[in-house]
Amino acid sequence: MTRVAIALVHHPVLDKEGNVFTTSLTNLDVHDIARSARTFGAAPYYIVTPITAQQKLARAIATFWDEGKGAARNPDRTEALRTVRVAASLDDALAEETKALGERPLVVATSAKRHEKNARFGDVRRRIREAKGALVVFGTGHGLAPSVLDEADLVLEPIYGKDPYNHLSVRSAVAVILDRLLSDER
Amino acid sequence: MTRVAIALVHHPVLDKEGNVFTTSLTNLDVHDIARSARTFGAAPYYIVTPITAQQKLARAIATFWDEGKGAARNPDRTEALRTVRVAASLDDALAEETKALGERPLVVATSAKRHEKNARFGDVRRRIREAKGALVVFGTGHGLAPSVLDEADLVLEPIYGKDPYNHLSVRSAVAVILDRLLSDER
Repeated sequence: MTRVAIALVHHPVLDKEGNVFTTSLTNLDVHDIARSARTFGAAPYYIVTPITAQQKLARAIATFWDEGKGAARNPDRTEALRTVRVAASLDDALAEETKALGERPLVVATSAKRHEKNARFGDVRRRIREAKGALVVFGTGHGLAPSVLDEADLVLEPIYGKDPYNHLSVRSAVAVILDRLLSDER
Repeated sequence: MTRVAIALVHHPVLDKEGNVFTTSLTNLDVHDIARSARTFGAAPYYIVTPITAQQKLARAIATFWDEGKGAARNPDRTEALRTVRVAASLDDALAEETKALGERPLVVATSAKRHEKNARFGDVRRRIREAKGALVVFGTGHGLAPSVLDEADLVLEPIYGKDPYNHLSVRSAVAVILDRLLSDER
């Protein structure tokens, strides 16, 4: 079975005006996405931020439920948060996955906007199944910086429901994308 | 096209010990679920709570983005939050939908646990397409009280990914369920 890792990127991402910036960690991004990752069989879940104080915070959120009072109170949450790893950059996460796999994983970038390299959900699902490992990359803020999309092997098409409106939270987008790419329901 | 409404229920739901109680509103439940509803074509999105102070809070969260500073700052968010309505009980939401439709909508309850009335995603999707209207009901806390499941026309099977672990946040669960039931991607 393919090893599928995911990364939530806080830098480099775009702000409202399209400039590259760094977002802050959101507590519920850590929790909701860890629970989706565990449910749909993705691990590890890399939280990518270059800011050391934010890296510490991410570790504190994840390990509260592993070692602290949280573990006794909510073992399901603990199991989900065990998938969390912290990386200073997407390159660091990619290097860690390459080391674990023995080869470079298929890098799949995601975006709510159309991109010239867009690949259909069905195609990406097949490519992931055929690969030894994959790293699916999600952006915070107003989405991944163009450099991340350019360097990815595939850019997944945006999620659409009924019409062009597709302003999902990153928490919801990760859940839908992992379901579409990895779930046995398909 | 079928009119599909959704309801997020804060009472009657279960606590950790399985007792019926009332949960508090969560700001991100309002936002994330409104954005998913708008993306997948569900409206209205009823926030169900019997507590008047919480009803006021729900209205304040929704209308901040409609009339306040939020509207200018983030028109996509405004559009999503326009789907929000507040109801004191699930019966009130159901009565409102019945009035709008001219007949009782198909009531679909959801749960992360198996239920004797469980219907498959594909079947529920078909039943919704054939109906004039549907109301899909989601629970907070540890899930909808048994009385809600018993009174529903259908109880949707739980979401599973790869194995029995399925502890999604309600925000993620709503996104995946609306995608599976309503999206054209299927």
